[in-house]
Amino acid sequence: MKKMFNEFLYGRDYNPNQWPKEIWEEDMRMFRLANINSTTINVFSWAQNQPSENEYDFSQLDEIIERLSQENSQIVLGTSTAALPAWMFMRYPEVGRVDFEGRRHTFSHRHNACPNSLVYQKYAKNMVEQLAQRYQDHDNIVCWHINNEYGGECYCENCQKAFRVWVKEKYGTVEAVNKAWNMEFWGHKLYSFDEIVVPNLLGDGIHSEAASFTGISLDYCRFMSDSLLDNYKMERDIIKRYDPDTPCTTNLMGTFKGLDYFKWAKEMDIISWDNYPSYNTPWSFVAMSHDLMRGLKDGQPFMLMEQTPSQQNWQPYNSLKKPGQMSTQSYQTIAHGADTIQFFQLRRSVGACEKFHGAVIEHAGHEHTRVFQEVASLGSQLRKLQPILGMEKKSKVAIVFDWDNYWALEFTIGPNKNLKYVDQIHQYYQFFYDKNISVDMISPDSDFSKYDLVVAPVLYLVKEGLKEKLENYVSAGGNFITTYMSGIVNESDNVHLGGYPGPLRQLAGIWVEEIDALAPEQTNSLKFNDGQTGTCALLCDLMHLEGAESLAVYSSNFYKEMPVITRNRFGKGNAWYIGAQLEPKTLYKTLQEITAECNLSSAVSEPTELEVSIRENEYQRFIFIMNFGNEEQVIPKDFVGSENLLTGQKLTDATVVKPYETVIISEVVS
Amino acid sequence: MKKMFNEFLYGRDYNPNQWPKEIWEEDMRMFRLANINSTTINVFSWAQNQPSENEYDFSQLDEIIERLSQENSQIVLGTSTAALPAWMFMRYPEVGRVDFEGRRHTFSHRHNACPNSLVYQKYAKNMVEQLAQRYQDHDNIVCWHINNEYGGECYCENCQKAFRVWVKEKYGTVEAVNKAWNMEFWGHKLYSFDEIVVPNLLGDGIHSEAASFTGISLDYCRFMSDSLLDNYKMERDIIKRYDPDTPCTTNLMGTFKGLDYFKWAKEMDIISWDNYPSYNTPWSFVAMSHDLMRGLKDGQPFMLMEQTPSQQNWQPYNSLKKPGQMSTQSYQTIAHGADTIQFFQLRRSVGACEKFHGAVIEHAGHEHTRVFQEVASLGSQLRKLQPILGMEKKSKVAIVFDWDNYWALEFTIGPNKNLKYVDQIHQYYQFFYDKNISVDMISPDSDFSKYDLVVAPVLYLVKEGLKEKLENYVSAGGNFITTYMSGIVNESDNVHLGGYPGPLRQLAGIWVEEIDALAPEQTNSLKFNDGQTGTCALLCDLMHLEGAESLAVYSSNFYKEMPVITRNRFGKGNAWYIGAQLEPKTLYKTLQEITAECNLSSAVSEPTELEVSIRENEYQRFIFIMNFGNEEQVIPKDFVGSENLLTGQKLTDATVVKPYETVIISEVVS
Amino acid sequence: MKKMFNEFLYGRDYNPNQWPKEIWEEDMRMFRLANINSTTINVFSWAQNQPSENEYDFSQLDEIIERLSQENSQIVLGTSTAALPAWMFMRYPEVGRVDFEGRRHTFSHRHNACPNSLVYQKYAKNMVEQLAQRYQDHDNIVCWHINNEYGGECYCENCQKAFRVWVKEKYGTVEAVNKAWNMEFWGHKLYSFDEIVVPNLLGDGIHSEAASFTGISLDYCRFMSDSLLDNYKMERDIIKRYDPDTPCTTNLMGTFKGLDYFKWAKEMDIISWDNYPSYNTPWSFVAMSHDLMRGLKDGQPFMLMEQTPSQQNWQPYNSLKKPGQMSTQSYQTIAHGADTIQFFQLRRSVGACEKFHGAVIEHAGHEHTRVFQEVASLGSQLRKLQPILGMEKKSKVAIVFDWDNYWALEFTIGPNKNLKYVDQIHQYYQFFYDKNISVDMISPDSDFSKYDLVVAPVLYLVKEGLKEKLENYVSAGGNFITTYMSGIVNESDNVHLGGYPGPLRQLAGIWVEEIDALAPEQTNSLKFNDGQTGTCALLCDLMHLEGAESLAVYSSNFYKEMPVITRNRFGKGNAWYIGAQLEPKTLYKTLQEITAECNLSSAVSEPTELEVSIRENEYQRFIFIMNFGNEEQVIPKDFVGSENLLTGQKLTDATVVKPYETVIISEVVS
Repeated sequence: MKKMFNEFLYGRDYNPNQWPKEIWEEDMRMFRLANINSTTINVFSWAQNQPSENEYDFSQLDEIIERLSQENSQIVLGTSTAALPAWMFMRYPEVGRVDFEGRRHTFSHRHNACPNSLVYQKYAKNMVEQLAQRYQDHDNIVCWHINNEYGGECYCENCQKAFRVWVKEKYGTVEAVNKAWNMEFWGHKLYSFDEIVVPNLLGDGIHSEAASFTGISLDYCRFMSDSLLDNYKMERDIIKRYDPDTPCTTNLMGTFKGLDYFKWAKEMDIISWDNYPSYNTPWSFVAMSHDLMRGLKDGQPFMLMEQTPSQQNWQPYNSLKKPGQMSTQSYQTIAHGADTIQFFQLRRSVGACEKFHGAVIEHAGHEHTRVFQEVASLGSQLRKLQPILGMEKKSKVAIVFDWDNYWALEFTIGPNKNLKYVDQIHQYYQFFYDKNISVDMISPDSDFSKYDLVVAPVLYLVKEGLKEKLENYVSAGGNFITTYMSGIVNESDNVHLGGYPGPLRQLAGIWVEEIDALAPEQTNSLKFNDGQTGTCALLCDLMHLEGAESLAVYSSNFYKEMPVITRNRFGKGNAWYIGAQLEPKTLYKTLQEITAECNLSSAVSEPTELEVSIRENEYQRFIFIMNFGNEEQVIPKDFVGSENLLTGQKLTDATVVKPYETVIISEVVS
Repeated sequence: MKKMFNEFLYGRDYNPNQWPKEIWEEDMRMFRLANINSTTINVFSWAQNQPSENEYDFSQLDEIIERLSQENSQIVLGTSTAALPAWMFMRYPEVGRVDFEGRRHTFSHRHNACPNSLVYQKYAKNMVEQLAQRYQDHDNIVCWHINNEYGGECYCENCQKAFRVWVKEKYGTVEAVNKAWNMEFWGHKLYSFDEIVVPNLLGDGIHSEAASFTGISLDYCRFMSDSLLDNYKMERDIIKRYDPDTPCTTNLMGTFKGLDYFKWAKEMDIISWDNYPSYNTPWSFVAMSHDLMRGLKDGQPFMLMEQTPSQQNWQPYNSLKKPGQMSTQSYQTIAHGADTIQFFQLRRSVGACEKFHGAVIEHAGHEHTRVFQEVASLGSQLRKLQPILGMEKKSKVAIVFDWDNYWALEFTIGPNKNLKYVDQIHQYYQFFYDKNISVDMISPDSDFSKYDLVVAPVLYLVKEGLKEKLENYVSAGGNFITTYMSGIVNESDNVHLGGYPGPLRQLAGIWVEEIDALAPEQTNSLKFNDGQTGTCALLCDLMHLEGAESLAVYSSNFYKEMPVITRNRFGKGNAWYIGAQLEPKTLYKTLQEITAECNLSSAVSEPTELEVSIRENEYQRFIFIMNFGNEEQVIPKDFVGSENLLTGQKLTDATVVKPYETVIISEVVS
Repeated sequence: MKKMFNEFLYGRDYNPNQWPKEIWEEDMRMFRLANINSTTINVFSWAQNQPSENEYDFSQLDEIIERLSQENSQIVLGTSTAALPAWMFMRYPEVGRVDFEGRRHTFSHRHNACPNSLVYQKYAKNMVEQLAQRYQDHDNIVCWHINNEYGGECYCENCQKAFRVWVKEKYGTVEAVNKAWNMEFWGHKLYSFDEIVVPNLLGDGIHSEAASFTGISLDYCRFMSDSLLDNYKMERDIIKRYDPDTPCTTNLMGTFKGLDYFKWAKEMDIISWDNYPSYNTPWSFVAMSHDLMRGLKDGQPFMLMEQTPSQQNWQPYNSLKKPGQMSTQSYQTIAHGADTIQFFQLRRSVGACEKFHGAVIEHAGHEHTRVFQEVASLGSQLRKLQPILGMEKKSKVAIVFDWDNYWALEFTIGPNKNLKYVDQIHQYYQFFYDKNISVDMISPDSDFSKYDLVVAPVLYLVKEGLKEKLENYVSAGGNFITTYMSGIVNESDNVHLGGYPGPLRQLAGIWVEEIDALAPEQTNSLKFNDGQTGTCALLCDLMHLEGAESLAVYSSNFYKEMPVITRNRFGKGNAWYIGAQLEPKTLYKTLQEITAECNLSSAVSEPTELEVSIRENEYQRFIFIMNFGNEEQVIPKDFVGSENLLTGQKLTDATVVKPYETVIISEVVS
């Protein structure tokens, strides 16, 4: 794996422009105390650096870079294009987005430029050119941070025109568009590309999760993701022209729906992302998000670009991180593939909407705070972990995540409105997390052959080639799990005719005749072959065996005795099909048995409430043992005798790991 | 009664245009297998048949009609005007509706043409003229299906102008408008018709169930219903010019609020409607909807135009119909007056928003499915029921349903926001349904004299003449029930002054001094004359006897001991007044006693959980015995000894009717 | 205190224009029967009096005033500018407001004129000039009622321009604006006043309680309050020119958020307000609202401008007032400072949205109703209370209420979205209410020195000078309570840096290092020094003592043992700081102890469920003893031996006060 940085970047969002200069010196002192070695600057300074259309003034930025360089800070340089100057909105109102309800927005917030606005593109391009030219040779700049948290949609006339061009490029003819979008339905047959309308509320959209012609909305998701990606690429290409070696990135947002991150990842030198769990987000969900970010570039380490040192402000209830929580969360992040730990933000802003967002330097302004001390302490510990940079996290299990599926599945009207893509994926991830079995999050385009088990819940959209790829994988000895609502549509959201699960039917060895939807107050019971019982809900397939064997059958409703969980031996491998949303215990029993059959091993030899995650290379291995629960836990016996890298203490069978405590062991790979 | 068709039309929505031609032949084979004898076509093919403003191309439609005719399919021909071609929106954006929030919509969905758009009218007219001229003499066309599921509102400038004309025609002078809408309130006095504004959110509307000047919004409901009716009449008149004998209809939607179906019914040759209950809709509600549809044309049989053979897709939770459910639902439909059983849809669409909507031919594409077999089986059974066509459902009880009341009551702000019109009506209907006492749903303009009992819950709006009509009915021996929130306003939503219930005061023999509103967590108790107690909620009248006798009094709150249920002997008849929303048991006791007093008889001599409904003429009678519960039920002893028409078996006192089973008995009228 | 009227004005909204003239005579008869001595007219008659731009016609108004004067009615004359004539919207659409979502509204409802519309201002000015000139010398006019229930916002282009002017006047330079609004955050730096955008949804607003740049939205609240106040002042100034002696007022709405009523009060001769509690509004909340209205002009008696004699119509559930409730509510109003009792409305309207709103004359139209009789009876009793006019309600406790705080606190994003300003204030008020300790509601600008205890919950925004003022008050012997979320920001919503609670830190003798937010399902426990335990929720400060003593500490969470309630002896006084939202019992214990320490005395010597409130002057005292509960209560022993003014009966220790009964005692001040 490629190592981008020589040490953990530790630091991040620093906005000296918001403060008088006397504060800057105090900042430097505090950074040193906190072991902060890196700063991200210029994320939101466009208006500062360009007072009007033809006027640039980088004197402040020069000064900031100069001062930070004296401190030897490793600078991540923002391109500042995520928030537009007021003058641009005033002179060119078309730079503002038109929203789903058709309303043109104006100067406000951030992340609100129409991505297809030529005006926006022109000025963004010019600004990046100025920055790249000016700072290309600066030694302290270790990374370019392009724009910020790309996302959102625009439905303006300009986007409508660009969409028509995009559609024409994709499909070639109007006939192909009519077929792809099934426009004969309700008589929407098009005769010209100019008849295409953006699918917002005034057009074919209903709300963000429903549309009459899902094909249009699905393509619009792709188009918007591509439009923003074009914005990104425009900036990156300019930077590369001047500074080809410094890595370029932009901060992603985990399972954020708006962008096809697998496609984006191809254009990014390194993945970076912002991790903001809520007070009640399961830690398995956080872990899954890290694994997804690591998976975007096939296991390459990523940057943890933002997390809060203490609390957030934009959640409904912004609880404090408890003592140890921030550091244990950071270790989890590293354990799952991060090579940097960065914070939003270094100093809390004095006003506006994020003033209640935590920071390394709080409003109190000094270092005698719990939060500051925890940051300083973690900074010091990180030095012990430098060898980890570039190490892998190895997995024999992969879970398929796919934005096309995400979009298509959630635009669908029926059969059950409570079917949510990420929630479905997480149900499966959670089992492996709880068992301390490492998981890779992969795309349908990834190489399956590395894995003993590939899990693809709700693989609703199966595009061309995937059928053969999966069949090849399994017949060569692979193990595959899929579920209800899989194999339903092609990449245009048109049904694979002939019987569900369409292209997966032979592989799974079953035919799903009907799909029942259960209301929230309803469940069905089921019975395993071993006589044990279980419960399922949400969606229930009515299926027939076509070569598969039944592992469990329904024991209620009119489809009592029909199979609900099946296994098909296919070539040298196996394909399991789970025909209903299983309640947690039932799902765990099912996956436990499959896991055993696949000989998948956990990082620990006995069950534990602790998370145990490993990063390694061919020589060395770091084992992270973390307690995210409320009770202290005995250290797994596997690790008795090892040394806790963080404390230097030997682990005994009396050693306990306290809530939000982390134990790290470094091992030579034998 | 008039019989429109020679056999049950069985079939319906068929969209071969969405499919390659090789599928068509397979369709024909499947239709034969399924006993499908009818198809509805061309519902959404405007764009196909008219590629641009002056270009028509009916070659595909010709071919479809030709092929179906070879199969001897009875064709219901759609006029295709419910979904506009893209070119119309592109060239004439004014054909798109402006919504309640003032937003102009564009090419998308369906049912979104401004009904007062001259452009829309021109092109719809031309299209219908083309169709009528071309297919007027086609033998296989048994019915014209005009447009589709009319509904929705437009608030564009054009509608505003048309509304002013409509208002001027209705009222003549601005003074009359000011009086009708009580415009002196808040000083809204108008001096010109041009000052009238459409009552959407930018005008006087608040939301779809509230307005400051309810008179305007009430008239706008009438105007919109009339505007769409004018669209319908325009198409019908063209068709009649070419093809005067084939019946014209459009598919209605039960208790849909948007259109005054009693007014529409006058213009329709036969009522047809689409029946889509949710997974938890009470079967009594479905029965009530059928009775309402039958009532629209005074008992004339109707077409069941759409139902799903298996599941829907646009509900939150689209459960499957259980085995037998579709056929029993169909028998209920026939028992309540249907002379056709038709399905949306014959073949499931491959893409777009309805791909998860059930169909006779599922995505699997073959006949070996539960759903297909149930459809085929019903189709075969229907042949035994042909004599029923044209038969009546006789009732001695009528419940008044009135769109003016529906609109006016729900625009009202106060006294209790949870007062919903259809729910109120259904509370009363349900009693008779549970007792197997047949009910006609009638309008205030219907002939009351046929009935032993007329029930008019929340008869809020009492227009001119109704007072006298009701008094005549009762004094001649009729029995009448009304409730709280009755007799309050005239047809302009202005209060009948002098004391509630206004024009019903003498008939009811009471004066309601005040109306208390109870919050959801509150109830009042009451005491019947026989000492039994009951409970009421929502609204409680504080009333004084003026000739009536008290049947029950409140036993709580400060109006304890005031009467809550009364009976007034008026001429030869009786008028009951129910002054509060009674909880189900209390309502049942009350209605049980009234029913007994009116000598109303049930279709069965003893209580049963089964629905028993009868259609008959002077010679013959069909008795439908249906089980909509979860438990099997013993056949009522009245029917022991008869033969089950569907199975040929003799009914014994051991015969049970299983869940979703139907027993049909044919009797000679003695 | 100034006495505005010679007797209780008793009457109010009278709209003879809505009725034919034959009704007018009947009205006069009914008013006499009901002891109604006052009428408010012309509130909504602009269109009637001005049929078009240059045409005025006061003949109807002349006639109404003439007829009322014959009855010797004391007339409150409306200026009629709250609802615009249709012709104004038709000819000048810009008089309609643009809402938060950017939509221009048109002729409809009321209170919807753009306050910065020059057209609106011109015609409003002309109308008031006409009225003032015409009726200036009319003896029966005792008060001018300007406009009606001012409120609402406009975001039109015209308001945008006016806002830029307002901002320029306030700040002088763009640099000052950038600083005040912290525009460097997200790079929003302005270079010109013309770059300022109104903060609605298309600009910087998010919804009515969130914005990215809270400084802009906070200033926009001030600007809108000022804009409407300018409308008010424009009218008042014209009236004063013609009729300098008759008091001018407009009806306020208690804790309504939209307007800074303390600022408005300065321009009003007398406060008047509309009191519309819901069926479940606590009576302590009603009392607090009265006290706030009395506090606006430093204790000066106010007009109860509107209440309903029976029920409302615009609540979700509009329950009837029970027998005695209306009069006891009226006595409470007088006890808290009202010198008038007025009703909306005298006669129920026949149509439009308020026809279900109660009135003195109901739709029945005669006097033989419970409601009418209760109104008549109260009217007769009020004569016994005439000496009370102008009397004070004396308090030794003050609670600080501040619209700047209200706005700023609720715009804040984080830490807990359930933090609502008025609810926070009411939690504290309720304690004193339950203890029958009289409270003044004051502004931060009020004189604190009169009070033994000043309570300022969530004193989030502390503007310049308040720190010193509070410190002076306490060091001179005052007692002060404040809470979490106090001292956080300055008047531009920028944080007071250096540690919370900023300017209150020295006074409170503590430093709040962090603020934890609890979700609704979470609580923390706490322990008082006396060993008793308590519970808290919502927000929990993590604080350090800096001179204060701890009165209670947390007993759960990681900040267990940190202080949660403290007291700081400061000069001769005390400052208490309550660091978490205490659950009611815990809050009561805390306040009970503080109250005891401050030697605050209740109106009764022993606890009672009755409300006991006193109005007095140097000679005489009226004691109101009111039962707002469901059970009868024994009269407190303090009052045994006195005479009930309403009945003339002597109070004994067996005397009970029934639900909704009031006892009034008149005492000579000794």
